[in-house]
Amino acid sequence: MDINALSTPISEHEMYMRLALREAANAFDHDEVPVGAIVVVNNKVVAKAFNQVELLNDSTAHAEILALTSAYQSFGSKYLPDATLYVTVEPCLMCCGALYWGKLARIVYGASDEKNGYRHFTSSPPFHPKTEIIGGLLAYEAAALMKDFFRARRQ
Amino acid sequence: MDINALSTPISEHEMYMRLALREAANAFDHDEVPVGAIVVVNNKVVAKAFNQVELLNDSTAHAEILALTSAYQSFGSKYLPDATLYVTVEPCLMCCGALYWGKLARIVYGASDEKNGYRHFTSSPPFHPKTEIIGGLLAYEAAALMKDFFRARRQ
Repeated sequence: MDINALSTPISEHEMYMRLALREAANAFDHDEVPVGAIVVVNNKVVAKAFNQVELLNDSTAHAEILALTSAYQSFGSKYLPDATLYVTVEPCLMCCGALYWGKLARIVYGASDEKNGYRHFTSSPPFHPKTEIIGGLLAYEAAALMKDFFRARRQ
Repeated sequence: MDINALSTPISEHEMYMRLALREAANAFDHDEVPVGAIVVVNNKVVAKAFNQVELLNDSTAHAEILALTSAYQSFGSKYLPDATLYVTVEPCLMCCGALYWGKLARIVYGASDEKNGYRHFTSSPPFHPKTEIIGGLLAYEAAALMKDFFRARRQ
């Protein structure tokens, strides 16, 4: 991440990522893998979601997919060219594909996912060419939630 | 596709793909990009869907995603290890990712998609290692529907 190249001040990105982290904490409290996502358009949060794979018994119910679907419904549009999606963990291939179709302006993610993140599967970013990608924002906080979750499950 | 290696007789695969083609024709009739999908478990159709991106204003509403979500709800399970998904067109990256998470037994697709199909983005199949992939079944019929659709849109 090149902070000098950011078109939005870092503090604003951090503010929204902290809302995404709050969603991730919600997931944690519901015994879901703690991932949260927020969609922001023109400095307004238009959708938020946490991973609900277990609650919905649906392995497509990742935070990003739920947040995107909510934002599409909110806007009555299948594209979000002015939107930024904040997600606490590097998106998987399914979510990258969904974000590709949505043609978002920007995707900001937190912790890397060595096992299921898109970088494990593709050598070049599978996003829309117009989408800006920023990785590693508040990664420590997002990764700590994930580690606590999986440590508790192993006990 | 190596027909001799198929664990299900070709006529059965064809029968289910024709049901998926019927879904694709439904999509066509609703002015949607004509893609249809069917989920089969133990010789029973447990879900069927056609692409509804325009109807739902949701770019995640591909036939495969809708069929998977319907099948998960039907089974009360987030995995479908005994299921075969038939889809008329080569899945995109989003749908491959969704199928990966579902751990399906088999994916059978029809026409290739040179622009948006997963083979355009990845050199190795991004599916679960336990999932069998069969491509090209009734490809001509599926491709003809797509060509007719886009020809009509250009006029």
